[in-house]
Amino acid sequence: MIVVKVGGSEGIDLDAVCADIAHLWSAGTRMVLVHGGSAETNRVAEALGHPPKFVTSPSGFTSRFTDRATLEIFEMVYCGKVNKGIVERLQRLGVNAVGLSGLDGRIFEGKHKDSVRSVEDGKVKVLRGDHTGTVEKVNTHLVELLLDGGYLPVLTPPGASFDGVAVNVDGDRAAAALAAAMHAEALLLLSNVPGLLRAFPDESSLIERIDASDVEAYLEFAQGRMKKKVLGAAEAVQGGVGRVIFGDARVEGPVSAALAGRGTVVS
Amino acid sequence: MIVVKVGGSEGIDLDAVCADIAHLWSAGTRMVLVHGGSAETNRVAEALGHPPKFVTSPSGFTSRFTDRATLEIFEMVYCGKVNKGIVERLQRLGVNAVGLSGLDGRIFEGKHKDSVRSVEDGKVKVLRGDHTGTVEKVNTHLVELLLDGGYLPVLTPPGASFDGVAVNVDGDRAAAALAAAMHAEALLLLSNVPGLLRAFPDESSLIERIDASDVEAYLEFAQGRMKKKVLGAAEAVQGGVGRVIFGDARVEGPVSAALAGRGTVVS
Repeated sequence: MIVVKVGGSEGIDLDAVCADIAHLWSAGTRMVLVHGGSAETNRVAEALGHPPKFVTSPSGFTSRFTDRATLEIFEMVYCGKVNKGIVERLQRLGVNAVGLSGLDGRIFEGKHKDSVRSVEDGKVKVLRGDHTGTVEKVNTHLVELLLDGGYLPVLTPPGASFDGVAVNVDGDRAAAALAAAMHAEALLLLSNVPGLLRAFPDESSLIERIDASDVEAYLEFAQGRMKKKVLGAAEAVQGGVGRVIFGDARVEGPVSAALAGRGTVVS
Repeated sequence: MIVVKVGGSEGIDLDAVCADIAHLWSAGTRMVLVHGGSAETNRVAEALGHPPKFVTSPSGFTSRFTDRATLEIFEMVYCGKVNKGIVERLQRLGVNAVGLSGLDGRIFEGKHKDSVRSVEDGKVKVLRGDHTGTVEKVNTHLVELLLDGGYLPVLTPPGASFDGVAVNVDGDRAAAALAAAMHAEALLLLSNVPGLLRAFPDESSLIERIDASDVEAYLEFAQGRMKKKVLGAAEAVQGGVGRVIFGDARVEGPVSAALAGRGTVVS
């Protein structure tokens, strides 16, 4: 089976992604789709008067600061608008999709991190009231149950803490944990770039192949959200996933193209 | 098994509903929860600058006019904020809940009604671009799959048209269709009134018993949203559901109280 993660950034063509998934699914490919919703969450949060806040950790990773109000907006967009929009696209194409968050059936479970270290004006501050976590456990039982029943699972953050509290988990790393737990042959991380670039944003500087044993060394080339994809790729290959491909979600047949090796292949 | 529908009106104590459900679930009651989210949808729609519009049909039934923008707000609130809020409450109480819309796996399926007749200033107008439908088919396979797997399904509108388009379906009538399809022993319709009132809003005028063969005659006492509950009750008992109870979601142990016959019992 394969796990496909499609990001929530600008420029991604969800219609093309869903059409390609429907094609592969009807041909018998066992798969799970994981998605984001970041750009739309920012828009809705602004419209509701609760603008997004991002923090950068001392090690350079950027993430959304998720207080309770943000968590609810996050759920509205990820679990409501985006998840059901994807399920509807797939249903219209004849795929019996089922959309779930990582909170449902505790598909994505991990420790609740209430505080986060943030670098602001060169100083490290500690912010409390955060609802984030890292996926430590995947409920493969529920995902297998759906797949065996003929349903295509469409999964999205948030996940559940070990106490059942909703926590914002990174979608790329959640997809990586899922791929490892499901013993996936491949994990495709599709976003709005052609893959990992040696000199971002120069798209001609695409890195085509990375040796699995060497993937963390490539963190230095990753900018912004790509950092977590590289981290996810490292976690997936260490977890036994055969191949991880960073692919371009903006092209025709984006899933098939990535599966055929277009993008950055980690193996 | 039993089907519990809890409304989305003001005054409903979801914490009390979830605590009671956790209690019954841990005692072995096989159940499905269906919920609404109407009041919160109105608030979010106002905040996003797309205020709700309600239409009243020539036969006196009130429903939300659901254009595409409204449908997306509806999905954000019903499938995102409210559904995941309920799943989180249940997960915190140790119930392995799984939240789905009727679009997922086509749990609630029916014909897409694009136009609606609306009485405005005494005249009947036809409004187009509506995304509504009536549940004609229930995917009991998916609901049974989850129940047999140990998961408590938490379901919400929208449903799916036969073409896979998201359609706003009435939650009470969807719960009634589900209860009939699942051969439920009881359907509990919980809202912010004690039951069907002979002289709304006088709560001392509660109608305690209605004969199943006679339920449609009670439509005359139903005001506003209660009309669809009475219609749903009629459909459920005609579909073979043993008992339908209109119960009060504002009290302690609201599910147990309704199961014990507190409210209006149709049987």
